[in-house]
Amino acid sequence: MLFNIAIFLVFMIVLADMDGVLAWFDLGVNLKLAEQYPQVNIVPLEKRSTFYIQYDYPAEQAPLIQSIYMAEGFYRSLPPVPGGREGIEEILGAGHDVRICTVPHPNHRYCLPEKYLWVEQNLGEKWLDRIIITRDKTLIRGHLLIDDNSEITGAAVPEWEHILYTQPYNLGVKGKRRLTWDNWRDVLVELRA
Amino acid sequence: MLFNIAIFLVFMIVLADMDGVLAWFDLGVNLKLAEQYPQVNIVPLEKRSTFYIQYDYPAEQAPLIQSIYMAEGFYRSLPPVPGGREGIEEILGAGHDVRICTVPHPNHRYCLPEKYLWVEQNLGEKWLDRIIITRDKTLIRGHLLIDDNSEITGAAVPEWEHILYTQPYNLGVKGKRRLTWDNWRDVLVELRA
Repeated sequence: MLFNIAIFLVFMIVLADMDGVLAWFDLGVNLKLAEQYPQVNIVPLEKRSTFYIQYDYPAEQAPLIQSIYMAEGFYRSLPPVPGGREGIEEILGAGHDVRICTVPHPNHRYCLPEKYLWVEQNLGEKWLDRIIITRDKTLIRGHLLIDDNSEITGAAVPEWEHILYTQPYNLGVKGKRRLTWDNWRDVLVELRA
Repeated sequence: MLFNIAIFLVFMIVLADMDGVLAWFDLGVNLKLAEQYPQVNIVPLEKRSTFYIQYDYPAEQAPLIQSIYMAEGFYRSLPPVPGGREGIEEILGAGHDVRICTVPHPNHRYCLPEKYLWVEQNLGEKWLDRIIITRDKTLIRGHLLIDDNSEITGAAVPEWEHILYTQPYNLGVKGKRRLTWDNWRDVLVELRA
C-alpha cells in the first residue's frame, strides 16, 4: 500500500517489452526442443549467454532453433514470465500508463496475430489496446522502457530510460538500472527519489 | 530537383497513416460490396461523409459493411492510393525518416499479417521495418503525422503536427494543414518556411 502511494505521485508512461519480460520466449523454445528434438542438448535457462538464443547453440543447430520460433503456434503457446502480469497490472493500477512494446519477428503471418492472442489470453482483453508493434523502440514515447535486450538503438535519441530486465544473458551488462518482477517496486520508488 | 533540395535541409520524421492515405480502404470496401452484395446501394467515394464508412450506410447495413473489412483477404487486397508509394519514397529519398503508423483493426488474425503483406507487395520489402502498429498515435515520435482521421487523441500531447490527408469525409474540418499525394511537395516546402 505504501509502495502504491509512492509510485502514484509521479505519472509515468512505462513501456514493457514482451519476449523475455512478459512472455517467456526461452522457456518456450526449450519446451519445443524437448518435445520435438529430444536429441538436442538443451541449453538450460540459467546458462543462456547471448540475447539471440540460436547463438547459444552450435552453428549447425541455429536453423533448427529458428524453425521453432518461426512455426505456427509458437508465440501463442509461450508461458508467461512469473509476476509479469501482476507487475504491469499494479503499475497501471497505481495510475501510470503502461504499454507493451514489442518488435515483430520475421514470420509476420504467425507472430503478429499470435502476439495479440497471447496478450488476450495471458494478460486479458483490455491489454490488446496497449500493444505497440515497432522495429524501432526509440520512436516510442515513454519515461521508462523495461527490456531484457541490452542494445536498443534506432532513429531517435530515446525519451525513456532503459531499465534492463535482468536475464542470465544480460548479467554482464554494466551501467543500466535493472529490475525483475521480484523487485520492480523498489526500483520504481528509487526512480522517484 | 529544386524541391528535393529544399525538403532535405531540415530533417524530419514523417509518420504516414496507412488506411485512407496509402491503402485505399474505401475503394476496397466498394469493390467488395459490388462483388458480393449487388443489391446494396453503394455510396460513391466522393459522397463519403463520415470517417467510419459504416455510418454512411443505413443502420441495418452497418454489420454487412463491417463483415467486409473483418473478412480474410480484405486488407491484403486493398488498392493503393495513387501517388502514395511515390510520395513516401521521395520523402525518404530526400533524407527524411518515414514510418507507416497504423491502428490495428478488430480482427487481428487477418488484419495484422495482411497489413504487413500489403506493405511488402505494394510498397516493397524494405518498408516492413518501417511499420508501427499502435492504437495510440500520440505515443509515436515524429515531426509530422499525415492522416485522414481528423480526430487523433491519446495519452500524450503529440510531438507531431497533424497534417490532414484530404478525403471527402474530412473536407469540413478546419484549422489543420492539409495535403494529398498531388500537392505534398508544396506543403513540405511551406512547412520548412
